[in-house]
Amino acid sequence: MRVELVNTGTELLLGDTVNTNAAWIGQRLAALGIQVTRQTIVPDGAVIRVAIAEAAQRSDVVLVSGGLGPTNDDLTRESTAELLSLPMELNEGVMEHLTAYFAKRNKIVNDATKRQAMVPKGASVMPNPFGTAPGLYFPASLGEPLGWNAHIFLLPGPPRELKPMIENEVEPRLREWLPDGASRRVLYLKVTGIGESDIVEAVEKQLEAVPGLDLGYCIRKGDVDVRLAGSQSAVDAAADIVRGAFGDCIVSEDRRIIEEVIVQLLTDRGEWMATAESCTGGTIASRITDVSGSSRVFGHGWVTYANEAKQQHLGVPAELFEKHGAVSEEVARAMAEGALRASGADHALSVTGIAGPTGGTPDKPVGTVWIGLASKAGETWAVKRFYPGMRDRFKLLTSQAALDLLRRRLCGLTPRS
Amino acid sequence: MRVELVNTGTELLLGDTVNTNAAWIGQRLAALGIQVTRQTIVPDGAVIRVAIAEAAQRSDVVLVSGGLGPTNDDLTRESTAELLSLPMELNEGVMEHLTAYFAKRNKIVNDATKRQAMVPKGASVMPNPFGTAPGLYFPASLGEPLGWNAHIFLLPGPPRELKPMIENEVEPRLREWLPDGASRRVLYLKVTGIGESDIVEAVEKQLEAVPGLDLGYCIRKGDVDVRLAGSQSAVDAAADIVRGAFGDCIVSEDRRIIEEVIVQLLTDRGEWMATAESCTGGTIASRITDVSGSSRVFGHGWVTYANEAKQQHLGVPAELFEKHGAVSEEVARAMAEGALRASGADHALSVTGIAGPTGGTPDKPVGTVWIGLASKAGETWAVKRFYPGMRDRFKLLTSQAALDLLRRRLCGLTPRS
Repeated sequence: MRVELVNTGTELLLGDTVNTNAAWIGQRLAALGIQVTRQTIVPDGAVIRVAIAEAAQRSDVVLVSGGLGPTNDDLTRESTAELLSLPMELNEGVMEHLTAYFAKRNKIVNDATKRQAMVPKGASVMPNPFGTAPGLYFPASLGEPLGWNAHIFLLPGPPRELKPMIENEVEPRLREWLPDGASRRVLYLKVTGIGESDIVEAVEKQLEAVPGLDLGYCIRKGDVDVRLAGSQSAVDAAADIVRGAFGDCIVSEDRRIIEEVIVQLLTDRGEWMATAESCTGGTIASRITDVSGSSRVFGHGWVTYANEAKQQHLGVPAELFEKHGAVSEEVARAMAEGALRASGADHALSVTGIAGPTGGTPDKPVGTVWIGLASKAGETWAVKRFYPGMRDRFKLLTSQAALDLLRRRLCGLTPRS
Repeated sequence: MRVELVNTGTELLLGDTVNTNAAWIGQRLAALGIQVTRQTIVPDGAVIRVAIAEAAQRSDVVLVSGGLGPTNDDLTRESTAELLSLPMELNEGVMEHLTAYFAKRNKIVNDATKRQAMVPKGASVMPNPFGTAPGLYFPASLGEPLGWNAHIFLLPGPPRELKPMIENEVEPRLREWLPDGASRRVLYLKVTGIGESDIVEAVEKQLEAVPGLDLGYCIRKGDVDVRLAGSQSAVDAAADIVRGAFGDCIVSEDRRIIEEVIVQLLTDRGEWMATAESCTGGTIASRITDVSGSSRVFGHGWVTYANEAKQQHLGVPAELFEKHGAVSEEVARAMAEGALRASGADHALSVTGIAGPTGGTPDKPVGTVWIGLASKAGETWAVKRFYPGMRDRFKLLTSQAALDLLRRRLCGLTPRS
């Protein structure tokens, strides 16, 4: 199935908006086993007509986004109707939706907005619960007089309107048209602590032998999402292979990220965590508190960037700095144990390392980091990691490794060597 | 000038990579007064040939990125040569670069890589100091036999290779071809603490009256970048208008973000800052420590998510919680003053608020936040802000407002009401 995307939006071409819709749609379709064959971005205005016509000639499905709004530059609806020679008709259902939508906001529907209730004859309305402009679906039969064989979908541009419409209106139709669409499953295994190339080496040969499996890898914020798609039995067989090879590195099978998993695990156990961060500078605490409900499991955190702060607030003995240096197993252990004591939490994570670009030595180059974990029950862990490179990447990967250390304790695993 | 972008990259269509190159190029060209007229993304492989031909027929300049690597799917160089009927020749200069590049990494140049040294006759090499594949420039004259009038640039896909090549090789040529290219200036005023619509209302009318000014707004992480482009005199006149209207909200005129500005201001004064964060959960500390060199100005931070943490570590009196609640001016002041004492820093920022989605009351709805700033010299400030909406946006805008409060003190300004 050849699927093309056509986006209209001057802000995309000016670079004022990054095209995240396109990536999101690409992933959703990849999960159905469809690869987008082309993506075209044109400015707001009349050129959308040309772009839709070209895409419809080349493909089976055209997904058009943007240009359904009330302004003069929003011409997607009218352009498509003109291409297919369809008259416009006022749609009472859409008009009711618009009236209700504006009434809720103490406004009335003006003439510009009313245009959004005009629907080309033969097109189906796709409801838009999150905005004013409805989506429109033009069955391929409408293009037959032109020699086309493409289903055309007009979708709103804003992500919070577009995404649910793709999920609820577009994907069910695509599934119908795909030979295996109804029975197709997709599973994302979120893997952390192991690189993409190691994953490939460990399981790709075995996975390639699973009949009818579509396999993909997507690197996301220090994790690798392994995407398994196909029949239920293919997905099950493939998931067993991945779980067998490195099941202890699978953070979730439902796309939850590690901070969400940790907040859930701690909540279930009624336990608390604390953080003592040097080189990550608050990133671990910030990630944990990104999760709604984290106040049930996280109360105390320190950013002890200076050595005096490590001594004063966490009670790290001064002689450890002289004897071992701030970036050392001993300091990481003392920070974690100090944070555990000072917070009264059940678990305390610590990190001390060299984010760079300066501060490295031959013994401890930029990128070196020690991560500690102290818990009320169980011995203190300390692991060394090495993430050379850019500062933001160092902070991301270090915070990821620290969170994973806590996940492993909460799951009854041992640290990765 | 009609400029089209053509990207090749299956990972872009699968959604595994977000197309940030396109947005970056769009911004660079907008600064030159050029709006990209179309952007096309096609998979790796032979279809690139069709996409380049279509773009060259329609435009004056085609910027092609990706497909210059050593694998079988990298066909951009060969496809363009075929389109223009140009024979391939080994380029000694590129071969030397490749040999040296690999020697540095203890590798030798293999046959697949050697392909990158083949240059179509008549094309100019654009050096790639950050990778192996050189860029190639095809003057418009090479396409004349086909009836085209387009300059074609082939560029590498990885951002760290592409961006310097655009800046050093493409932009100088575009400037030459633009009537006002050589004298054209661009200035970005980064404005914080005031919304885009308020900016527009305050200055747009006056800015529209500046002859030859190209004006743009770009919203970036809670700031608005006001882009002024045109002749030196137009940019100067426009900048004076913006500075006159809200100069105290201009964070930088050189694209530096607020955390960089603050680290510089503190470094210049030899002063230190500390943080005491509740609802932002470490985001302020994390942003400050994103800046290289921040260890000279930041040593101590607290994430006091729980009220007991605010009492124990910052000395906030227990009765303040009973009398005023945790989200109150009094607690914000006490947190900032406590952090100042406990850290010995010159300035301490505090935040206490309701990030949501739960925890709001009619008096203090979700999104309410108090921000405090205590300094060794000067009275303690406390300001109330309201950022309803999503949790991540709340944390971003609150940390931004807190950093701006410190910036205003360091610049001798008063808090915004």
